[in-house]
Amino acid sequence: MNVNKFIRKNIGSLSAYQAKDIPCKVKLDANESPFGFAITQKIVRSIQTNRYPDPEAKALKTVIAKDLKIRPENILQGNGSDELIYYLITTFGGPVLYPVPSFSMYGIIAHALNEKKIPVPLDDSFDLDLKRILLEIRKNKPKLIFLSSPNNPTGNCFSADRILKIIEASANKSVVVVDEAYQPFAGDRGFIPMLRDYEHLLLMRTLSKIGLAGMRVGFLIAREEIIQEVNKVRLPFNLNSFSQGMALEVMKNKAFLRRSIRTIISERMRLFRELSGMRGIMPYPSEANFILFRVPEPDSVYENLLKKGVLVRNMKGVVDGCLRVTVGTPGENRVFLKALRVAVKQ
Amino acid sequence: MNVNKFIRKNIGSLSAYQAKDIPCKVKLDANESPFGFAITQKIVRSIQTNRYPDPEAKALKTVIAKDLKIRPENILQGNGSDELIYYLITTFGGPVLYPVPSFSMYGIIAHALNEKKIPVPLDDSFDLDLKRILLEIRKNKPKLIFLSSPNNPTGNCFSADRILKIIEASANKSVVVVDEAYQPFAGDRGFIPMLRDYEHLLLMRTLSKIGLAGMRVGFLIAREEIIQEVNKVRLPFNLNSFSQGMALEVMKNKAFLRRSIRTIISERMRLFRELSGMRGIMPYPSEANFILFRVPEPDSVYENLLKKGVLVRNMKGVVDGCLRVTVGTPGENRVFLKALRVAVKQ
Repeated sequence: MNVNKFIRKNIGSLSAYQAKDIPCKVKLDANESPFGFAITQKIVRSIQTNRYPDPEAKALKTVIAKDLKIRPENILQGNGSDELIYYLITTFGGPVLYPVPSFSMYGIIAHALNEKKIPVPLDDSFDLDLKRILLEIRKNKPKLIFLSSPNNPTGNCFSADRILKIIEASANKSVVVVDEAYQPFAGDRGFIPMLRDYEHLLLMRTLSKIGLAGMRVGFLIAREEIIQEVNKVRLPFNLNSFSQGMALEVMKNKAFLRRSIRTIISERMRLFRELSGMRGIMPYPSEANFILFRVPEPDSVYENLLKKGVLVRNMKGVVDGCLRVTVGTPGENRVFLKALRVAVKQ
Repeated sequence: MNVNKFIRKNIGSLSAYQAKDIPCKVKLDANESPFGFAITQKIVRSIQTNRYPDPEAKALKTVIAKDLKIRPENILQGNGSDELIYYLITTFGGPVLYPVPSFSMYGIIAHALNEKKIPVPLDDSFDLDLKRILLEIRKNKPKLIFLSSPNNPTGNCFSADRILKIIEASANKSVVVVDEAYQPFAGDRGFIPMLRDYEHLLLMRTLSKIGLAGMRVGFLIAREEIIQEVNKVRLPFNLNSFSQGMALEVMKNKAFLRRSIRTIISERMRLFRELSGMRGIMPYPSEANFILFRVPEPDSVYENLLKKGVLVRNMKGVVDGCLRVTVGTPGENRVFLKALRVAVKQ
């Protein structure tokens, strides 16, 4: 069967996401939180499986708004940030500018939606190449700019002054989305205070990195007028009842959340120190829940770790010569470090 | 703030879905099943909130495939059918042809994705206007045709021979999606046996009408080559862990499902008889879980029903002069009929 007679041309050159299901004992490859939440009877009892979810996710948005000191009208709920990227590109169109390496979905979704992509390489210290980005803004007029800070897979925050210069250069021309998926591990309020100053600044947050990856809950944060436009392309029931209920409970009981984030940050610092002390290994400073590190012969180190049951991410083709490890529980991190010490010697 | 300088032109003329949150005692407006499922401890224990869902929904697709006597490779999972419509239009593009009145999301999503729409009115008996559709296929060359059968909001199945003629006229030109959201209430296998004969035939199914509206689980069914293309534009984690787990359990324990569908069908027949016997009311025959009926002064009847706590759907602007009632539990249907008898006399 020749499907090319049916599909749009841009789909032909697109590849499907490759699901990897690699058996392991210690899973440190996907930037998940090692700390899950209990599904209480209170949540279970609140769900009516046969009724459609609240299309506005009112209760959840109210709690999120309070937490972030903004208004519910400034929030749009997504089935994970992935879906919000889809909606953003549908609403604003392309070209879509984003740095590389960064979160891969900006480029993949732009391609799926047949919009022009402008990937701009980071500079040598993994920061934004301001000169090149400003040139692209003038020359190729992107409608949408995605900046992930802290950035995945490099772990660093981009310089705030460079982000601000990009925002200022985009005024009246394009919207700038600062993707703060990893912001909870960076220890400040991120760009939320800047929303006041820039009408074309949009932020993304997610619960995926702080214990609810399985529930797919992301948020877009922006001026009410912007939210109203993106809301037009949102599917009415995009966030299911269970995810709404679970996210609501998690946000209401923040003590566990705060404790788990504190643990991850202190474990990240410990991992960084340990990795720094290992011969041949160079970890990059991180403000996220993972660490990118350079290692001799990354392919064989990756395989050796896996033989010990420890799964990390091989960044070949993205940041050559590097592996990325998600911060796990203290016990998981010990297993990882021990396995790594052996792996690099083999 | 003038958002028009940022958004794509087609978004400006799009309206957001209007969420209606109308308090009522008997909710018969949304074509939900009146029978929900218990969330068992087995399901709760199987969920790890902090881990990403299975991106392939392997276990669920295996069970669905077995139930429908197809292969897992013929199935693509969606966050409800809504999301699959998004993916279909992204993959195949427009123009998008669909009858009216029918499920509103075909037109809304085509508009959001900036594809040309070809809405074709149904004939006087709510069947497909074959002549007009064949003309549109020749003249305007749709890439994608959506046919919902049984159709919402009219309740009838389209003539199988008309659907087949449309499929045959589209060969090598466009894909035809038969949306079988309401098929479980129609009592045959629907178009699944036809998949063998037509490479460009696609089907949609959903668990939303049979007890899992809150979980958002829809399926696309087609040749493997077609599924592979649509899968390229699917977000990897579109179906969350809980919805996967819950759907899996429901499909494994089909006795409850079958019983609830049987009850809904026999209640629909009873409702139809009762409505037929009421002076001034004309119900349309239905093979779905709802009945469209013509009534004098529908606005005031709608309001009178609501005063009694019974919420139905006012079809003004879609099928003028009509209300649509979802089949509820036997008790709910009694309350509805009693309230209706009073309402039409007022």
